[in-house]
Amino acid sequence: MIRLDSTTPDFADAFTALVNARREADEDVARDVAAIIARVRSEGDAALADLTRRFDGHDPDASGWRIDSAACRAAFDALDPDLREALELAATRIRAYHEAQRPADSDTTDAQGIRLGARWRAVDAAGVYVPGGRAAYPSSVLMNAIPARVAGVERLVMVTPTPKGETNGLVLAAAHLAGVDEIWRVGGAQAVAALAYGTDRIAPVDVVTGPGNAWVAEAKRQLYGVVGIDMVAGPSEIVVVADGANDPEWIAADLLSQAEHDPTSQSILFTDDPAFADAVAQALEAQIETLATGRTARTSWDANGAIIRVPALADAMPLVDRLAPEHLELACDDPEALFGQVRHAGSVFLGRHTPEAVGDYVAGPNHVLPTGRRARFASGLSVLDYMKRTSFLALDADGLAAIGPAAVALAGAEGLPAHARSVALRLKR
Amino acid sequence: MIRLDSTTPDFADAFTALVNARREADEDVARDVAAIIARVRSEGDAALADLTRRFDGHDPDASGWRIDSAACRAAFDALDPDLREALELAATRIRAYHEAQRPADSDTTDAQGIRLGARWRAVDAAGVYVPGGRAAYPSSVLMNAIPARVAGVERLVMVTPTPKGETNGLVLAAAHLAGVDEIWRVGGAQAVAALAYGTDRIAPVDVVTGPGNAWVAEAKRQLYGVVGIDMVAGPSEIVVVADGANDPEWIAADLLSQAEHDPTSQSILFTDDPAFADAVAQALEAQIETLATGRTARTSWDANGAIIRVPALADAMPLVDRLAPEHLELACDDPEALFGQVRHAGSVFLGRHTPEAVGDYVAGPNHVLPTGRRARFASGLSVLDYMKRTSFLALDADGLAAIGPAAVALAGAEGLPAHARSVALRLKR
Repeated sequence: MIRLDSTTPDFADAFTALVNARREADEDVARDVAAIIARVRSEGDAALADLTRRFDGHDPDASGWRIDSAACRAAFDALDPDLREALELAATRIRAYHEAQRPADSDTTDAQGIRLGARWRAVDAAGVYVPGGRAAYPSSVLMNAIPARVAGVERLVMVTPTPKGETNGLVLAAAHLAGVDEIWRVGGAQAVAALAYGTDRIAPVDVVTGPGNAWVAEAKRQLYGVVGIDMVAGPSEIVVVADGANDPEWIAADLLSQAEHDPTSQSILFTDDPAFADAVAQALEAQIETLATGRTARTSWDANGAIIRVPALADAMPLVDRLAPEHLELACDDPEALFGQVRHAGSVFLGRHTPEAVGDYVAGPNHVLPTGRRARFASGLSVLDYMKRTSFLALDADGLAAIGPAAVALAGAEGLPAHARSVALRLKR
Repeated sequence: MIRLDSTTPDFADAFTALVNARREADEDVARDVAAIIARVRSEGDAALADLTRRFDGHDPDASGWRIDSAACRAAFDALDPDLREALELAATRIRAYHEAQRPADSDTTDAQGIRLGARWRAVDAAGVYVPGGRAAYPSSVLMNAIPARVAGVERLVMVTPTPKGETNGLVLAAAHLAGVDEIWRVGGAQAVAALAYGTDRIAPVDVVTGPGNAWVAEAKRQLYGVVGIDMVAGPSEIVVVADGANDPEWIAADLLSQAEHDPTSQSILFTDDPAFADAVAQALEAQIETLATGRTARTSWDANGAIIRVPALADAMPLVDRLAPEHLELACDDPEALFGQVRHAGSVFLGRHTPEAVGDYVAGPNHVLPTGRRARFASGLSVLDYMKRTSFLALDADGLAAIGPAAVALAGAEGLPAHARSVALRLKR
């Protein structure tokens, strides 16, 4: 963890270093991933089976390729009632938030009598990647699958590795609740390749979303264009802007809630109150000792954490924009005023009673958000990621007479005579 | 050109071959592009100057790095009045269509008193790539720059190669009209890398859009995630669905308007009338002889063209969906009925008086559209490509009391105790 003060002369350089620090794994996975994709593309299921045996220690030919819907229903029914209700509340709220995202079609006729519009349709099939092991989160299943269902995707496929054959009951329960149609017990770059190109067993999909390790992320990047993808995801991060009136325990917990995700996660606190900064740092040290995830949180906080003092909270906002954080908490009396200054953030949590974690699970907005400063240009996952727009145009002879000559002139100037002719021929009648 | 009949036994295989035919250049440019990007990233302007001398035969240090706004205005003023009016009509209509795309923010409070919403903002800076040489189209400048301006992008940068130092007056005029802020005389993968990472001269941008050759396309693909990009673009294509009541000359011109773009372009006609099919083929042969672009069109039509007979036009629609064409013309009396069946197409042109070329220039919808079957999951360029969404959330103590316990339960189940604690601590008060 570093402590910075925005009023010191060395701050500009130190902050720039913080902004530019690369936390993303620099593993050279591109070549491995390219080889895996090529193999799955040419050998199909045989390659998939072989790679699954090798990487997951699980033989799909022996123990099954799929998890059926009965198993998902059973996992859901077996949930502790509190947990089932929590999952249902989450699903209901996520669905409601995303239903409001459904885009409106347009269809207008202008003064020249020219009809113009755009029509949105869901993709036919979507694939959701769900990691195995530590990052197997039922909340991620809901956050990816529900927007696809709300979009109207007809075929919703999930792929998830089952290391040594083990499945995760919570993930299956979430898949049941979200209405996933097919679940395949494969993972890694090979699963993404199978979704993109299809195999004899697995029909191809049009869009692949969902979190994964460096291999999965690289596979999505390489297959972007063959299929649609949600985004290139990196380590998670939170920025908290808090005044001294906050309870330091609360803010310490918020910072740790990001740090516990992964050693590469980042938690940054901006405050105008040095005594509060000390109190948060102290509370964090005490809390970290009691966390089952303390070791991960410790590594993350030590390596990537920061507490930055600013003269006033408003002074933090231009700095926040440079970080373009995935998550931004504004813990003060008038968060709205600060929010008005924010240009780049994935999701913003306003006020003292809005911890980021409530947004991870049950609030409704998507928790799949742009990381690594990508909030400068990217948005969180939404219904739009599972839809596409078709524009359309209808002219009659009068409409073409009104604007056609301009098209002929421009086509001529661009040296495209067949373009010009296709319009000019129709102007004669 | 191939002729197919959907009622013959060998049709299924032949059509599948047509759908899967790879028209995209299989040049192995990935390694070259990676090397160029790495060099520009580490050496900046020096690499850019060197590569520009080598690939464009133009020394920016000697003849200038930039084209200033006075030169653009002069180019605009020097336009033939007809052409200037055509360009102005195009700009006005493109602007009007894209203004309607501006997304609405949301801000609602639900029954639990929880405030949820989303806010759209433009990216700070966008870069538009404009090819030099054959594909230097002023219409593309308008189609890329105007949506960025409508989105509210503050800094709009254009890069364009000036082979042997030559600039294109029409492109400069279009840049003036669209309100481009900076123009840099660089091109290729090196220009895209400069936009993404920035150099001493060129400040980095957040989004890069615009057409280009295989090197440019690959650079955008490799830099996706460092910046936002519009899409992975491939060779252009048109599908025309036409009955026998059309003038074969018109339809032949439409097919050629795509074929003249590039040898890899594709034009496909579906019709229910074999005599009409023959007439179109004959008209096309006659027209191609008179085209200045005839050689390109000939290569494209011979290699990639197709005329497909179907029993009724409605039978064509499932086949069209498999092609998911960039452009789709429905030239018949009731195009609406066929359009209702279309799931996958970039842009649709309805009726006999709506040639695709009118959409390329002046109608209003964007002409940057998904190619190579990507309309299954991708949309044409829009204002949204230059904007991003920030979701937000505000809870008070009562709201957190209502949904917080579910978050605590789920965080516990996912093994994330700091997440649970950050919510639980706030539930006590």
